[in-house]
Amino acid sequence: MLVDMTEQITTVSAYAAPAPGAPLERTTVPRRAVGESDVMIDIKYAGICHSDIHQARDGWGEGIYPMVPGHEIAGVVTEVGPGVTKFSVGDRVGVGCMVDSCRECENCQAGLEQYCAQGNIGTYNALDKNGEPTYGGYSSHIVVDEAFTVRIPDGLALDVAAPLLCAGITTYSPLAHWNAGPGKKVAVVGLGGLGHMAVKIANAMGAEVTVLSQSLRKKDDGLKLGAEHYYATSDDATFEALASTFDLILSTVSAPLPLDKYLGLLRTDGAFVNVGAPEEPVSLNLFSVIGGRKTLAGSNIGGIRETQEMLDFCAVHGLGAEIELIRADQINEAYERVLASDVRYRFVIDNATI
Amino acid sequence: MLVDMTEQITTVSAYAAPAPGAPLERTTVPRRAVGESDVMIDIKYAGICHSDIHQARDGWGEGIYPMVPGHEIAGVVTEVGPGVTKFSVGDRVGVGCMVDSCRECENCQAGLEQYCAQGNIGTYNALDKNGEPTYGGYSSHIVVDEAFTVRIPDGLALDVAAPLLCAGITTYSPLAHWNAGPGKKVAVVGLGGLGHMAVKIANAMGAEVTVLSQSLRKKDDGLKLGAEHYYATSDDATFEALASTFDLILSTVSAPLPLDKYLGLLRTDGAFVNVGAPEEPVSLNLFSVIGGRKTLAGSNIGGIRETQEMLDFCAVHGLGAEIELIRADQINEAYERVLASDVRYRFVIDNATI
Repeated sequence: MLVDMTEQITTVSAYAAPAPGAPLERTTVPRRAVGESDVMIDIKYAGICHSDIHQARDGWGEGIYPMVPGHEIAGVVTEVGPGVTKFSVGDRVGVGCMVDSCRECENCQAGLEQYCAQGNIGTYNALDKNGEPTYGGYSSHIVVDEAFTVRIPDGLALDVAAPLLCAGITTYSPLAHWNAGPGKKVAVVGLGGLGHMAVKIANAMGAEVTVLSQSLRKKDDGLKLGAEHYYATSDDATFEALASTFDLILSTVSAPLPLDKYLGLLRTDGAFVNVGAPEEPVSLNLFSVIGGRKTLAGSNIGGIRETQEMLDFCAVHGLGAEIELIRADQINEAYERVLASDVRYRFVIDNATI
Repeated sequence: MLVDMTEQITTVSAYAAPAPGAPLERTTVPRRAVGESDVMIDIKYAGICHSDIHQARDGWGEGIYPMVPGHEIAGVVTEVGPGVTKFSVGDRVGVGCMVDSCRECENCQAGLEQYCAQGNIGTYNALDKNGEPTYGGYSSHIVVDEAFTVRIPDGLALDVAAPLLCAGITTYSPLAHWNAGPGKKVAVVGLGGLGHMAVKIANAMGAEVTVLSQSLRKKDDGLKLGAEHYYATSDDATFEALASTFDLILSTVSAPLPLDKYLGLLRTDGAFVNVGAPEEPVSLNLFSVIGGRKTLAGSNIGGIRETQEMLDFCAVHGLGAEIELIRADQINEAYERVLASDVRYRFVIDNATI
C-alpha cells in the first residue's frame, strides 16, 4: 500500500481483468483519499459472484478495464474520515454491490438505494461521482463512504459473512418483502450461491422451504441447509404434485424457465419473484397470472438499511454462507468451476493472498 | 313463462346461439325449480360483454349449445325458496359471472369464489352441479342460489347497474386489491367497457387517473369519465413522458402489448395488472420487473362479497355504466358493433323485448 502524499491517493494491490475475457492477474489500482465521510477498509475476504465472471468477460458490454471485480466484501476499518460517525478503526464491516447513489430521489430517501432514480454506483465497473472508475473487492483495501458501509456483527465470521453482501441480501430482501415466514410455503429455484442462502434465510424466517432444482444431485445438501422438501424440475411429475402449493417462489437461476408451468405451482395470490434472469426475453401466457391473481415480479439486491438488517438477522440465526476459501491465484480456476456449477456454494478469496 | 308442475321446471324465453358462430335467435330454455336457497329473478336488463361474443362463437372451444350468453344481469326477485334469508320478492338484485362454486375450498371460504379450487360454475356455457347446462342473462328469468345473488342498492338504476356485474367488479377488484386511492397514480389501458368503468371507479377511489389509449379519439370522453390525463400509446413520446410514473397500471385490453415498455411506466414497487389478455403468449424481459421491484399480475372478476361491496361503492358515488340500450332483436347487430369498437361503452339489452 503506497500513499502519494500530494494527491493523497493510495495505490493498493488487486486482481484485475486487464481486458474483456482476459484472465485476471495481480496488479495495483488507485484508491481515493479518505474523505470526510469515508472509511478505509482492509479487505479480509471477497466472495466470487457469478456476475463477477459475466462482467469481467464483458457480458453486458461497456465494461471498464482494467476491471477489479468483487462486491461481496468483508473487512476491518483502518482509517476513518473526520465526519464519520458510524464506524471506528478496528470495526468489522462489509460492502456490497453499491458504493453510492444520488441520495436525494424518492427511492434513496426510502432506503431503496438499489433503485436510485439516477442509478446507483456499482462497487466495481462503474464511474464514481468524480468520474473515476470504481474497483471492487479483489483488492487489499477499499475506500467507501460510511453511508454505504455496513457493520458485520461479532457473531459472524468474516469469511462466511462476505457472500451475504450480495447473495444474502439479494435473497433476504424479496423473502422479507413478500412475507416469507411461519405458515408460508416458499420454493427456491436453483441451489447455487443465491439459492443456498435463500434456503437458509427462508427457513430461519420460519417458512416451509422446498428446493426446486434441475436434478436431485444436491438433495442431501438442500435438506441440511434447511429445506423440508426437494424436487427435480426435470421431472414433469413435480409440476403435477406441487400444483397450487406455494405462497412464494424465488427464482435464483438465470436460465430461461417455462414460466407458465412455474406459475401453476403458486397458490391464489402467490408470487413468483426473479432475482436471477436470462438476458433474452421469456414467453408468458398472461392467463397464468389472471387465474389466481398471481404475481410475477423481480427484485434487485436490497437497500443499505435492509442489508444491515439482514446481517443482524443472520447473526442472530447463526447463518453464514457455505464457502470454499481460495487463494487469489486460484481466481481464474474458480471462475471456470463456477461456470461448471462446481462449487458448494460460494468461492471466497482470502485477500491476504492478493 | 311455462311451469311444468310435475318436474317444476320453468320454460322461459331467451336469445341463444344455436350453434358455434350462428346468429343469436329467440328460443326457450328450461330453468330449474326454485330450490331451498334459490331465488327466481325477472331479468330486466343484461349487459353485452365482449366475452359473450367470444364464447357464442366458440372462441375457447367446448362451447355448450344452444348457448344463452349474458353474465351482467340486473332484475327483480319474483320467488324465493323456503331457506332464502337474504332476499324477498320484489328485491332488486344482480348476478354476475358465477352462479356457484364448491364453497368449501380455501378460496371459497375466503370469499374468492372466482378462484375456486374446483373451478367456479359460470352463469352460462357451464354445467351446474346436477350436470345441467347453465343459461345466462339474455333471457326473461333466471334461477340462482341466493349465495351468488347480490343486492342492487336503491340509488342505482338497473340498466346502468347491469354492466357493473362484470365490467364493474373486474376493474373494482384489482383497483381495491392494489390500493388505488388518494396519492396514487393509476393508468387505465384501453377505454372500452371495462376501461370506462375502471376510470370511473379509480377516480371515485381518489386516485389520479390517466388513460392510455391507442389514439386520442375518445379523449373528451375519458376526461369526462374522471381521467385527469389522456395519452396515445401509438405515440412513442408517451412512453418517454410517462416513464416511472404510475403506482398501478390496469390493462383492460386483449391485444398483446409490448410489456417491457409498459413496465417502464411504473414507479418502484408498481404493479401492471392484466384483466384483459391475449390468448397467445407474450414476450417479456424479466429485467423489466427486477429493476424497481415491479409486479406483473392478473386478476379475474371478484368474489361475491366484494361484488356487493362494489355495488354499494358505486351507489354511494353515483357510478353506473355508460350504456346504449337495445332491443333483443338488435343483439346480433350489437355484436358486430362491439367487435368494431363502436360502442360507448356498453350495450345493455332491455329484457322486456326478449
